[in-house]
Amino acid sequence: MKATLIYGAGDIRVESVPDAKLREPTDAVVRVLRSCICGSDLWPYDSMPAHSHGDRIGHEFLGVVEEIGADVSGLKAGDVVVAPFVWADNTCDFCREGLQTSCRHGGQWGSSDVDGGQGEAVRVPQADGTLVKLPVAEDSTLLSSLLSLSDVFPTGHHCAVTAGVNPRTTVTVIGDGAVGLSAVLAAKRLGAERIILMGRHTDRTDLGRDFGATDVVPERGEEGVERVRELTGGDGTHVVLECVGLKPAIKTALGIARDGGSISRVGVPQYRDVPLDFSVFLRNITLTGGVAPARAYIEDLLPDILDGRIEPGRVFDRAIGLDDVPAGYRAMADGTALKVLIPP
Amino acid sequence: MKATLIYGAGDIRVESVPDAKLREPTDAVVRVLRSCICGSDLWPYDSMPAHSHGDRIGHEFLGVVEEIGADVSGLKAGDVVVAPFVWADNTCDFCREGLQTSCRHGGQWGSSDVDGGQGEAVRVPQADGTLVKLPVAEDSTLLSSLLSLSDVFPTGHHCAVTAGVNPRTTVTVIGDGAVGLSAVLAAKRLGAERIILMGRHTDRTDLGRDFGATDVVPERGEEGVERVRELTGGDGTHVVLECVGLKPAIKTALGIARDGGSISRVGVPQYRDVPLDFSVFLRNITLTGGVAPARAYIEDLLPDILDGRIEPGRVFDRAIGLDDVPAGYRAMADGTALKVLIPP
Repeated sequence: MKATLIYGAGDIRVESVPDAKLREPTDAVVRVLRSCICGSDLWPYDSMPAHSHGDRIGHEFLGVVEEIGADVSGLKAGDVVVAPFVWADNTCDFCREGLQTSCRHGGQWGSSDVDGGQGEAVRVPQADGTLVKLPVAEDSTLLSSLLSLSDVFPTGHHCAVTAGVNPRTTVTVIGDGAVGLSAVLAAKRLGAERIILMGRHTDRTDLGRDFGATDVVPERGEEGVERVRELTGGDGTHVVLECVGLKPAIKTALGIARDGGSISRVGVPQYRDVPLDFSVFLRNITLTGGVAPARAYIEDLLPDILDGRIEPGRVFDRAIGLDDVPAGYRAMADGTALKVLIPP
Repeated sequence: MKATLIYGAGDIRVESVPDAKLREPTDAVVRVLRSCICGSDLWPYDSMPAHSHGDRIGHEFLGVVEEIGADVSGLKAGDVVVAPFVWADNTCDFCREGLQTSCRHGGQWGSSDVDGGQGEAVRVPQADGTLVKLPVAEDSTLLSSLLSLSDVFPTGHHCAVTAGVNPRTTVTVIGDGAVGLSAVLAAKRLGAERIILMGRHTDRTDLGRDFGATDVVPERGEEGVERVRELTGGDGTHVVLECVGLKPAIKTALGIARDGGSISRVGVPQYRDVPLDFSVFLRNITLTGGVAPARAYIEDLLPDILDGRIEPGRVFDRAIGLDDVPAGYRAMADGTALKVLIPP
């Protein structure tokens, strides 16, 4: 079968790899219907040292169960399923607490002998725990939005949930990437009435407005902080959803959080330290968030997609074939694509 | 009247100052029955540059209302009252949200023209909002525990509340100072069944055990982290209450927080940055806490003291007269006293 490998920064290749097949009795094999490229895939694409061997890459996919292991009881061949961006048993204490990213028997797609998501098929470990069955056909028009349940939409949702978004909280979202826009949609879905989106790409912030943003602030840094403060009577917002992962974004977040407020970060941090000094202490600012346990949220978010109340799949603005994945990475890296969908 | 002033590091003096008197119609004058020295008073005592003039100091007191301004309606002369460690109107939006430390019309004791708490009397701004009437007589045996409502016990409580302590959370408290011990008591009161206290002063950790600590870990740093991990099956605790304020303590906290857990900090931070890197992000650790809005908690905590269910005043292990306040500071600074009470 074909799958995507990364050999180092800027070096993505689609190659023949061994077919996905059952190895453990708890495995399933899933034929991929939809996959995509994540903003977090761009970090190794930007900076990974060159290897002589390739590493499998991709961690978001939706597909059809082809085969199940002897111990898999909740799935059957032909089921349409979505996979969260880590696999997990969904039965350990962490999973029961909704933290499948810390599952005692879970792991990463593309690590050692596990397939990546950007390929024709995937061996899914802990299939009963990992996969969520979707009540749709293979040709459903909802596949893009359902694929977003794999990572990007639950990541925005995790950001909003951990920060405590509710109808009484004002919200700022930092970043108009696919995660930031998903965070806008998640905040709106949780009832937030005032959502300020910080971003400067008009096509993206327009989608942000469709998703629920009430204000758009293109300014960054100190200027951006001042602008948000102006919009909020000098106070800042109760909640800041930090969807970038760079230190200037976290500094902006600290500048615009209202006293007693929360900052949640879901952008993979490209920094080591956060300036949480005495002034932040005096203001009782909470910093929360982290890698999203997508699996914990999928059943909760699914009905709104099935009913058409939300369309998180609108973050996909380009679709390419598997052979064109290297071009898809280039398009996301140079900013000409927001998020790239990979049909079969 | 007499009051305490700080002229610089190590230079505390008790001097004559102008008598406390009404200035605004919202003021009250309170004759101090009990005051005390706070761990946070030791930071300027340790490092404040020398001044030619003294600054008033002390922010914890309990006393008797002597006079009220024309606009004060909820108090009368003779009322026994406790003051939280900042004054606040208790009516603005921040106060209504329980964040009186960010009151729009509040401020600090001892700042500019406001008296400090370590003196014979205090002019209390925003008296209706600031002061809480206590249903006890001037000679009540509960005065020490009631004084603790001014700062140290609500600070421990704020730490436990913001971190989300409940009967299902395991807890580590870092620091066996008065705030750490108060945090133990607060965590126990909120139902925590497993409370690990990190501290190495046996007399203090013994009081910590009386307050509810189930385990004591004298080791610090990496050794301390390992020991707490051993005690918790390798996982760490759901909650870490950081009651020190130094960078090694916050690093320890990060080492012993269970995945998905919370660290709350109430020790005044003597650092600028917190190492919240990718590994912390992957573990979904929340950092919360800050300066405690004591006023928000006093009514909630009061009944347990009046009923004798808790005795937070046991953190006071020395009582001195006002003239001996300089010696009280020395005793706390050199660690021979845990927390010093100042009777009239």
